[in-house]
Amino acid sequence: MEKVNIGVIGVGRIGRLHARNLKYQVPGTKVLAVADIFEKSAREVAAQLEIPIAEKDYRILLENKDIDAVVICSSTDTHAQIISEAAEAGKHIFCEKPIALDVDKIDQAITAVKKAGVKLQVGFNRRFDPSFKKAKELVAKGTIGTPHLVRITSRDPEPPPISYIKVSGGIFLDMMIHDFDMARFLLGQEVIELMAVGSCLVDPAIGEAGDIDTAIVTLKYENGAWGTIDNSRKAVYGYDQRIEIFGSEGCIMVENEKTTGVIVNGANDIRSDKPVFFFIERYREAYLAEMEEFIKCIQENKVPPVGGFDGKISVQMGYAAKESLTKGSFVKITK
Amino acid sequence: MEKVNIGVIGVGRIGRLHARNLKYQVPGTKVLAVADIFEKSAREVAAQLEIPIAEKDYRILLENKDIDAVVICSSTDTHAQIISEAAEAGKHIFCEKPIALDVDKIDQAITAVKKAGVKLQVGFNRRFDPSFKKAKELVAKGTIGTPHLVRITSRDPEPPPISYIKVSGGIFLDMMIHDFDMARFLLGQEVIELMAVGSCLVDPAIGEAGDIDTAIVTLKYENGAWGTIDNSRKAVYGYDQRIEIFGSEGCIMVENEKTTGVIVNGANDIRSDKPVFFFIERYREAYLAEMEEFIKCIQENKVPPVGGFDGKISVQMGYAAKESLTKGSFVKITK
Amino acid sequence: MEKVNIGVIGVGRIGRLHARNLKYQVPGTKVLAVADIFEKSAREVAAQLEIPIAEKDYRILLENKDIDAVVICSSTDTHAQIISEAAEAGKHIFCEKPIALDVDKIDQAITAVKKAGVKLQVGFNRRFDPSFKKAKELVAKGTIGTPHLVRITSRDPEPPPISYIKVSGGIFLDMMIHDFDMARFLLGQEVIELMAVGSCLVDPAIGEAGDIDTAIVTLKYENGAWGTIDNSRKAVYGYDQRIEIFGSEGCIMVENEKTTGVIVNGANDIRSDKPVFFFIERYREAYLAEMEEFIKCIQENKVPPVGGFDGKISVQMGYAAKESLTKGSFVKITK
Amino acid sequence: MEKVNIGVIGVGRIGRLHARNLKYQVPGTKVLAVADIFEKSAREVAAQLEIPIAEKDYRILLENKDIDAVVICSSTDTHAQIISEAAEAGKHIFCEKPIALDVDKIDQAITAVKKAGVKLQVGFNRRFDPSFKKAKELVAKGTIGTPHLVRITSRDPEPPPISYIKVSGGIFLDMMIHDFDMARFLLGQEVIELMAVGSCLVDPAIGEAGDIDTAIVTLKYENGAWGTIDNSRKAVYGYDQRIEIFGSEGCIMVENEKTTGVIVNGANDIRSDKPVFFFIERYREAYLAEMEEFIKCIQENKVPPVGGFDGKISVQMGYAAKESLTKGSFVKITK
Repeated sequence: MEKVNIGVIGVGRIGRLHARNLKYQVPGTKVLAVADIFEKSAREVAAQLEIPIAEKDYRILLENKDIDAVVICSSTDTHAQIISEAAEAGKHIFCEKPIALDVDKIDQAITAVKKAGVKLQVGFNRRFDPSFKKAKELVAKGTIGTPHLVRITSRDPEPPPISYIKVSGGIFLDMMIHDFDMARFLLGQEVIELMAVGSCLVDPAIGEAGDIDTAIVTLKYENGAWGTIDNSRKAVYGYDQRIEIFGSEGCIMVENEKTTGVIVNGANDIRSDKPVFFFIERYREAYLAEMEEFIKCIQENKVPPVGGFDGKISVQMGYAAKESLTKGSFVKITK
Repeated sequence: MEKVNIGVIGVGRIGRLHARNLKYQVPGTKVLAVADIFEKSAREVAAQLEIPIAEKDYRILLENKDIDAVVICSSTDTHAQIISEAAEAGKHIFCEKPIALDVDKIDQAITAVKKAGVKLQVGFNRRFDPSFKKAKELVAKGTIGTPHLVRITSRDPEPPPISYIKVSGGIFLDMMIHDFDMARFLLGQEVIELMAVGSCLVDPAIGEAGDIDTAIVTLKYENGAWGTIDNSRKAVYGYDQRIEIFGSEGCIMVENEKTTGVIVNGANDIRSDKPVFFFIERYREAYLAEMEEFIKCIQENKVPPVGGFDGKISVQMGYAAKESLTKGSFVKITK
Repeated sequence: MEKVNIGVIGVGRIGRLHARNLKYQVPGTKVLAVADIFEKSAREVAAQLEIPIAEKDYRILLENKDIDAVVICSSTDTHAQIISEAAEAGKHIFCEKPIALDVDKIDQAITAVKKAGVKLQVGFNRRFDPSFKKAKELVAKGTIGTPHLVRITSRDPEPPPISYIKVSGGIFLDMMIHDFDMARFLLGQEVIELMAVGSCLVDPAIGEAGDIDTAIVTLKYENGAWGTIDNSRKAVYGYDQRIEIFGSEGCIMVENEKTTGVIVNGANDIRSDKPVFFFIERYREAYLAEMEEFIKCIQENKVPPVGGFDGKISVQMGYAAKESLTKGSFVKITK
Repeated sequence: MEKVNIGVIGVGRIGRLHARNLKYQVPGTKVLAVADIFEKSAREVAAQLEIPIAEKDYRILLENKDIDAVVICSSTDTHAQIISEAAEAGKHIFCEKPIALDVDKIDQAITAVKKAGVKLQVGFNRRFDPSFKKAKELVAKGTIGTPHLVRITSRDPEPPPISYIKVSGGIFLDMMIHDFDMARFLLGQEVIELMAVGSCLVDPAIGEAGDIDTAIVTLKYENGAWGTIDNSRKAVYGYDQRIEIFGSEGCIMVENEKTTGVIVNGANDIRSDKPVFFFIERYREAYLAEMEEFIKCIQENKVPPVGGFDGKISVQMGYAAKESLTKGSFVKITK
């Protein structure tokens, strides 16, 4: 089959990572162009990765007939607009999460995608982590019978800058959104209502910015199972990404990955290495696998496994959590 | 110091275990007598353990001037009454949990104990488990800084008989009561309110008996930390007893104990042994240690580390959970 | 069936442990008497455990018609003589290892036992450890196919006193003897030759006493498998007792048991507890199980699973190792 | 600094891997050319990785003035000759192990390298594995005091083809050579003598080809420490690559890496994933890191950490092991 020609829009840390993966590790693709509102960044990345075209304006990429698909890694507030324009231009779309913080905008983007008949894949990278993916597959094939309880632990090694927290939508929309998606993914079931608690325990500055840094959300699934997610903005021991699915016939766990396999047995205790530092290290394989899947969906004309609906509902769950936190009671997920 | 002479009241499974531990493994004690409403049981145990006195009526033990302390392991509905009578008779008291399902009766028992000036220790055995005890001590000395999150997993290998569930007070009073106590113990802080969810997922017969078998409770501590407890009446892989305390400077976990240390690396996977079966195996050391502590408190005239107040508040937490489950919102703990 | 009446000869640490286990935890037995050349010790133990008879001279126990069996825990140099006399007196015999440091004396003791038709069990306690026992059973039922490699790690937390080393026969006879027995036990095969290396790396005083403190022995089994044993007199992290059996269809490992299940995730590393301190803690269940087996063999008239031949060959392996260390080549095991 | 221009000689599996790593993941390099006696392979790789030059004859690369360094991944019997020619041509050299099976040829190659003053790095990739590297660093900084015992387990998931075994020099030269290097690397000490045992337990065809498939080698280090290496050509559970260094102050272990972090707690046992399949997966990071180091040594004019002497002595250890296997006694390492 023909190579899929790609344009990457936004080449900050995650955009560069995708561009590099596509360029070097995904056969059947060609990264034709990058765009970034910081033109210098676009040029640097293009030079480094030997990409022919570097632009300031992403619209030039959308007008380029040779480009089959775009990977949107620009700032969140631009996602929905670019999706709509890319869809109109007939480009397939990979977009980092969240699609938007405004559900109406998400709807507009989804509508544009549907109308154009292009592919849309949303960047819930964790679904492509080999461990979580296997856990989900085992659940799906009944290894643990009927699921009763899901538990997701998701703690960052350090909080983002306060400036980010002010515009991110807060912990439920910038951080727990991944866990909401994971909760749905693991069981292949929707959550019908949820209840959030939390407070500011890590850093008062986060509270002053209007957010919390520690949260627990209890989930009720459509089929009767229950779930909990806990988040902290700061785990001193590193990125803590564990899940557990308990069912009538067993319990699946995914443990953290350690930096090395070294164990030191000493006079006082036994010491092993901490979990890998953060998402770039932890989800290295997942970032690559999601791109491979996106390209495959284009080549084989398949529906991407994580699309507009997933992008929308995870945001709706975030808003439900915010509402629940205020109300102190369960809040239903609006669909 | 003089030997502490003990009478054991109620010699079902747990009464026998205490009698045997006291007889054979706790120096400084003498098990003088056992009583059981099934006189035959009392006689059997006395014969087996070479205990001089076996009675049907516990009151005979209370009247015996040589007996210094009683260990109450009779059915729950008799605990409060026997405590009061034993206190009046000047006996020190170890009583299995719960003291009663009726908070007024607990108050009466506590009042009787205070009036008589005797010791009362309540059978929250898990506090004496070496792993949980060490976890608590590490928290207390600041190893993980300020605690933010507590997580308690407590799943039984199999449900109790339906007949038991009908009189036990239900999952929050017969099972999660241990976890409520553990939650308070680990942080050395009170829980001020809690929120319960749950349903009947394991066995419909449990639902027909008016109980649930799967539950998650979210806790708010007085100092701002949050906790979750999850319970299931049936974990096919065995007794699942894990805790986690996450704080500003680290995270303490206690893992399950496995039956053996054997690991089999095979062509398909790596297999290790399941957790030990149930509480008798898992808390073998804890049952002994709580008795040693009780005897030590008598000999050294110290206040037992887990007493009437602990027995009462854990029951109140159970009722708060029941109320929360019905209301669908947080319920404050009445003190 | 009738109770088996026991006399314990030698009530140092291990004699007391057996007496206590027999008294309190092995149904179907009665500890009638203890003897110790330190009469005071015998009296103390008898008083503490409520044993009727305490003697200085073990011969009084052998003359006692009520005694069915003796448990020999006196010093090694007395074992063979007491076995012979006990056999002549018609007593069943449990004897701590080694039977003797002199193979001729072992032969005489075995002959006496055979002639008298009494049971003889030798105290290779590790065979009764639940983990090692399970490992052996899995090998026997073919879980890992044909065994190719056996690896035994056996390191003490601290060296014995130099005075002990001077009379013990050295590392191969006082320490590795357990591992020689384990090597035979795990595969149910004899070792036909072995090669020893080692030196004094822990403490020069051990070298001055004529012994080494660090040793590796390579074993060749009759059926073609290979084994290695490594010993150190001092592992600062505690008693290190691991095994591994590698075969055509997999690999069985037994890991160390940790003091508690506590894990501390900190800013620098993940810390867990050290292995349990030493043999008393590590083999608590094994010491009890070997006594239960001994009593069962008497009651059911069965041959003890670890007897005179096992006691003899392990000593012969020890001498072969000493010879190999000097020669620098493989030495065959004399049978 | 200028980019280092590279030519890769031999583009079988490992040559492709190096070419790809250099092309995509090592900044500061440019892969200018590839050569392979199968010209088609050279062309394919060049096309796939967009490398300008593809030749059948490696000499064309050596004559190319733009090429600074060569990476030799051709068949073992060509290594020494190409090293000599490359040195004469003034190219820096990375060469896969072993340099040659003939020690004289190794000497000639080393002499040529010295004369030309170029860099030579030998492909002992495992030294660059993050876990083994950290273990070595901890030993070097005294974390476990004075090393007493080293243990290396190295078992392949499946034997190589018999045709390979016939020309490889056998298990000590094609497989254990890595472990000999690791043994030296971990302690930073030379082995002065060794003793090998082994036999053919996996597949009789290996024996018919004149090799063994199961081996244990005991090592004596210059400073008095002892080591063991065990090899098997077939571990059904996957690539088993573990080490252990025991010293006066503790014990460092490196465990296997598992395919995923999934754990399934079931009714019969707890199952986790097997080790990663083979060297390509296990040493992914190491293969990259060794190339980064090679390039860095060129750019910063440093001596590569693993060079000609290491390449030679590991082969000499292999021959010593072969001799020891025949003789049945220790054999000194000739330097």
